[in-house]
Amino acid sequence: MNTAPAKPAVVLLSGGLDSATVAAIARDRGITLHALSFDYGQRHRVELDAARAVARHLGVAEHRWANIDLRTFGHSALTDQIDVPKDRDESEMNDIPVTYVPARNTIFLSYALAWAEVLEADDIFIGVNAVDYSGYPDCRPEYIAAFANMANLATKAGVEGHTLTVHTPLIDLPKTEIIKIGLDLGVDYGLTHSCYDPDPAGHACGRCDSCLLRAHAFQQLGLQDPVLSHHP
Amino acid sequence: MNTAPAKPAVVLLSGGLDSATVAAIARDRGITLHALSFDYGQRHRVELDAARAVARHLGVAEHRWANIDLRTFGHSALTDQIDVPKDRDESEMNDIPVTYVPARNTIFLSYALAWAEVLEADDIFIGVNAVDYSGYPDCRPEYIAAFANMANLATKAGVEGHTLTVHTPLIDLPKTEIIKIGLDLGVDYGLTHSCYDPDPAGHACGRCDSCLLRAHAFQQLGLQDPVLSHHP
Repeated sequence: MNTAPAKPAVVLLSGGLDSATVAAIARDRGITLHALSFDYGQRHRVELDAARAVARHLGVAEHRWANIDLRTFGHSALTDQIDVPKDRDESEMNDIPVTYVPARNTIFLSYALAWAEVLEADDIFIGVNAVDYSGYPDCRPEYIAAFANMANLATKAGVEGHTLTVHTPLIDLPKTEIIKIGLDLGVDYGLTHSCYDPDPAGHACGRCDSCLLRAHAFQQLGLQDPVLSHHP
Repeated sequence: MNTAPAKPAVVLLSGGLDSATVAAIARDRGITLHALSFDYGQRHRVELDAARAVARHLGVAEHRWANIDLRTFGHSALTDQIDVPKDRDESEMNDIPVTYVPARNTIFLSYALAWAEVLEADDIFIGVNAVDYSGYPDCRPEYIAAFANMANLATKAGVEGHTLTVHTPLIDLPKTEIIKIGLDLGVDYGLTHSCYDPDPAGHACGRCDSCLLRAHAFQQLGLQDPVLSHHP
């Protein structure tokens, strides 16, 4: 019997497929989950409802929200009125996409760092992925390593000899592997939300890069993406 | 005659003595200032008025605010109802103080990074000081270097070969030197605000660490701190 007290960790939870899987992986390691979500003026606010549903589904110890407004600086299709690209082939998804939000992961991880320091948690989990999002500089392993190095110099914990670790268990996995791991851990992907351009009812469009990536991965596994079940 | 176009830079402007001096230094280098302030639920909101006054005084090109709420995580005398220490000797100011806000500079610099990316600015200025604030891990040169390294991996600019520099012109200067530089550059320190515990009218208390550090420095220069002129 494992009698060690559960370790706390901060888990960044967007409500998408990747972050839901990461949270399930952390839970499976016996970690007490402190889920952190952001209301950052994103157009797809249905993501926030998904984050709440996923947090409940996975039984997190605590779920907090930070209201931050990245529209202060603008410049992304996720926060501005720029058209989200549709029906692109995966080969077209390699450049830095218009859906890139400046410094987003850096801001998210900075908040996670602040909370980890208050919780005296040594671990942060984030669902970045360098395979599907190769165009996002802040999804690369070298970026995550540099963030962790900075974080250990930034905080009291670092000064006092603790080491903060930024866990990225999905970073080099293809989407099919991520889904397989999540299904094994009992993740209900019908609760998640990844679409960049949902309809007014909150249904996934099925055509943006994010929808296509997950739909193809489910297809490759002989499954249908449950969030697309409303599509004819 | 210098005909090069003015370079833009993001300058973190709290409204305190240090950030006002840094902004004046950047202006003196011919840089176009994009000043960034934060409303982070600090108890001393008079700081925000000071930031506005300093920005006007220094003729910044643009002054933006980010509303962030660090009370989400709490745990600092600057945002919680913890007593601010008073009348301490400078030798007592060396530990990590209760006024330390978790990961604050990391969050501030992350926002500056986001804005710099949108502005296509290669420079960020911040008034951190490792002499007076030796107890704050995120005021040390090694922290700033690690942040800059991370920032250059985080952004499109980094990927495209630009180098972002985080300028900390005050980092190893004693307060007296900072004040002398600012006075030479015409900074009106009567507009600045540094107090951790102002009275309801916004007057500096004259007794917290921050007030004492600047008051002593003005004294050493044979001057009175202009923000303490209301004191008898």
